[in-house]
Amino acid sequence: MIEPVFRAGETYAFSPDITAEEAYKVWIEAPAATFVAVDSNQAIVGTYYIKPNQPALGAHVCNCGYIVAKHARNQGLASLMCDHSQIQAVSMGFLAMQYNLVVSTNESAVRLWKKHGFEIIGTLPKSFRHSRLGLIDAHVMYKLLT
Amino acid sequence: MIEPVFRAGETYAFSPDITAEEAYKVWIEAPAATFVAVDSNQAIVGTYYIKPNQPALGAHVCNCGYIVAKHARNQGLASLMCDHSQIQAVSMGFLAMQYNLVVSTNESAVRLWKKHGFEIIGTLPKSFRHSRLGLIDAHVMYKLLT
Repeated sequence: MIEPVFRAGETYAFSPDITAEEAYKVWIEAPAATFVAVDSNQAIVGTYYIKPNQPALGAHVCNCGYIVAKHARNQGLASLMCDHSQIQAVSMGFLAMQYNLVVSTNESAVRLWKKHGFEIIGTLPKSFRHSRLGLIDAHVMYKLLT
Repeated sequence: MIEPVFRAGETYAFSPDITAEEAYKVWIEAPAATFVAVDSNQAIVGTYYIKPNQPALGAHVCNCGYIVAKHARNQGLASLMCDHSQIQAVSMGFLAMQYNLVVSTNESAVRLWKKHGFEIIGTLPKSFRHSRLGLIDAHVMYKLLT
């Protein structure tokens, strides 16, 4: 589920050539917690991680990343995971959530995060090397949770 | 030189209780390179690190952190290190430089980075837990180098 997203190099900064071991590290081991969403057959159809975005004096702001399985898209799953992650974040003591690099061409994500109360704090010119489009802009998005 | 800055908890997110080992790791080991500035007696009066700010598809944007020894402040040293770091960044192949968490109360830093062509891309509300002031805003600052 994660592999095609990382391989595409269109939404996450991780190398399109990332190994399974490295992907396990960044998605499962490094974060504070990782969740999966399952369908009615208990098959995994989505996942997200949550972690502090900065060390100690910035550790009250969390960062999350979300992936929905290709066959399960456009059913509101990203939206459900975004809601879940915010509730989870508050219960873990986080006061805000930050997305550091929302690729500007990922319009459905930008629209969805806005709908969930995230603001585009600013746009970083040419900060993402898109596999097909080359250097493009990415947004910093942010939401105070309490 | 670094210790009083980290202990103060007013400009960097690292824990004010950071150990020497952890500080060595974040300032010397984790970055791609770390430099020191010396005075005419070869005494160290400043230091900065440079590292990629994101993995692979964002690794063309670097991040730097700078510290000037207390007794050597207000002599243009941060400015010299900022210039040096930009030249160094270009020679290392970086295309842009990003400061992720410029504490809003650190007005001399904000003014200096602006003077050096960095823009405030956006401001993250309450993203820094200042040792004396509590939760305060911090800026994301950014400059295209080429």
